[in-house]
Amino acid sequence: MKDLNWTCPAPLPSEDRILMAHGGGGKLTQQLIEKLFLPLFSNPALEARHDGAVVTVKGVRLAVSTDSYVVQPLFFPGGNIGDLAVYGTVNDLAMCGARPLYLTAGFILEEGLAMSALGRVVDSMRAAAQRAGVQLVAGDTKVVDKGKGDGVFINTAGIGVVETQLAIAPSSVRPGDAVLLNGDLGTHGVAILSVREGLEFESEIMSDTAPLWEPVAALLDAGIEVHCLRDLTRGGLSSALNEIAGVAALTIRVDEAAIPVSAPVKGACEILGLDPLYVANEGRFIAFVPQQQAEQALAAMGPGAVQIGEVTGEARPTVILRSRIGGNRVLDMLTGEQLPRIC
Amino acid sequence: MKDLNWTCPAPLPSEDRILMAHGGGGKLTQQLIEKLFLPLFSNPALEARHDGAVVTVKGVRLAVSTDSYVVQPLFFPGGNIGDLAVYGTVNDLAMCGARPLYLTAGFILEEGLAMSALGRVVDSMRAAAQRAGVQLVAGDTKVVDKGKGDGVFINTAGIGVVETQLAIAPSSVRPGDAVLLNGDLGTHGVAILSVREGLEFESEIMSDTAPLWEPVAALLDAGIEVHCLRDLTRGGLSSALNEIAGVAALTIRVDEAAIPVSAPVKGACEILGLDPLYVANEGRFIAFVPQQQAEQALAAMGPGAVQIGEVTGEARPTVILRSRIGGNRVLDMLTGEQLPRIC
Repeated sequence: MKDLNWTCPAPLPSEDRILMAHGGGGKLTQQLIEKLFLPLFSNPALEARHDGAVVTVKGVRLAVSTDSYVVQPLFFPGGNIGDLAVYGTVNDLAMCGARPLYLTAGFILEEGLAMSALGRVVDSMRAAAQRAGVQLVAGDTKVVDKGKGDGVFINTAGIGVVETQLAIAPSSVRPGDAVLLNGDLGTHGVAILSVREGLEFESEIMSDTAPLWEPVAALLDAGIEVHCLRDLTRGGLSSALNEIAGVAALTIRVDEAAIPVSAPVKGACEILGLDPLYVANEGRFIAFVPQQQAEQALAAMGPGAVQIGEVTGEARPTVILRSRIGGNRVLDMLTGEQLPRIC
Repeated sequence: MKDLNWTCPAPLPSEDRILMAHGGGGKLTQQLIEKLFLPLFSNPALEARHDGAVVTVKGVRLAVSTDSYVVQPLFFPGGNIGDLAVYGTVNDLAMCGARPLYLTAGFILEEGLAMSALGRVVDSMRAAAQRAGVQLVAGDTKVVDKGKGDGVFINTAGIGVVETQLAIAPSSVRPGDAVLLNGDLGTHGVAILSVREGLEFESEIMSDTAPLWEPVAALLDAGIEVHCLRDLTRGGLSSALNEIAGVAALTIRVDEAAIPVSAPVKGACEILGLDPLYVANEGRFIAFVPQQQAEQALAAMGPGAVQIGEVTGEARPTVILRSRIGGNRVLDMLTGEQLPRIC
């Protein structure tokens, strides 16, 4: 815990206003949550610091999650804000081990938005909801004056049912757990940034945006004792590992050489000055499982899944990266903003 | 049903773009829902056209609702965007006859927003959640560039449990039903507009923003056979009556003389050129109940509750206002925008 308070006694001009980095999923986002939201809304569901909350209503365990989507541009290689808004929230439910059932959608439209663009976005949501097996059951539309929004912002909230008896959460992570990853990193962030910067690569890099309940269901159906799941959105792999190491109060070690990054993404990251370990993904997740079940779990997660590291017995909330050349370095949470408005 | 399609074969320039009035809760909002959203997301929960959806998960009946809040200014007499975002969604659940349990909150912050303003908003949400008896269990924060947002937008989604066996919905409205209203109209809209226009009235008009589960629970506890409930937000009383008359395919008659509007609100509406029947409220609702239970229902709804009309046997989806001077006129749905960004 940092001792920087959100209302600093003698705030610097830059400290008492919202910065882009407060939305980046890194350190400032964490501080905003820890200093502003958690103290005011103290309850076990929120304090679990998971992707969604698990609550019990009349004996039924439900997962609940929400995300707002402000991605720019609205349309990018491999997806758009519409399917992103469905998969993003569905995936937060899946990360709780919940089968996604229902979604709500709130639209904030900017005056002047082309109906045809909205039509394409909403049609993508329909297709994505169908693919993910969820029903959109409630919605809302607001319009803000031209210049007070940015085309369309979408909020989705999701409800899923938790049928597993496992407590899938950062606090369930144990020393000795294997850290598994379901595919290569960085395509979503690079796809967005390449459009934004007007870059063209030899082979177009497509966002990995996809629903993740299927591989999670496969893990559960295979009887894997899943300890924790986390999708690698804002802040990327590094921030996810740091958040989990923080809650579990354990050290996680990962091997740089084991983390798959495609050659085009690697090349694009070099040009764009990005580190793929911090770039947002929309179809990638990590699973913490007992080492003896790692092989079986990888098979369930599908082709492309690899083990990238393990949880050690050290009771220090740190992430250590073993680099390709053999050295060890602390892999910190994202500081500042790397890629604003990536989701 | 109008035959105007959202992608008109030969659209006028003004027809193929989003207008402020698409968010006003009136005719254009209805068209957007009917032409764009409903055809793509066809399911019984959405087609009920209620304030929230009622779904069943493992035998438990849940109400689900969402709203985004874009009110301007953020702070107004009697409330701010924070408590509005709690009560608005809690009330949508209550209108389904559901006891509100959990909320999610998604914040879209504009770069440069003062932390102290955000702190006040979030603290109001805490107090409002406590008063309404709900827990905020999941949240999300995004930041957009300065000039691409407007201070703060909040989306909340709510989950409630439906314990009544009644089907509380527009389709349950029956000929002979009494139409009851829980208090005077127009204070929320006038409170907002007076700040926006820099007007000062002799006595400050305060928004009526308040949670509504308590009077709804009182109705249910009293054994009232509630047919339909609707809070009178965007578009006001007239739009709510028209929406319900439309789904029920019945004529509703209301008495102008029976509809309470305070003298200060009446005066302010005259100055501002507003009709209180179309002004948004945030703590007012109408209840459709059998006429023989009307007295008992009014007692349960609390002081200020009055009967304003009844549902007739005419199978025509119309709202008729008996004016003070004795004439009858059709009370139409709000067309165009009366009060943009009122919630």
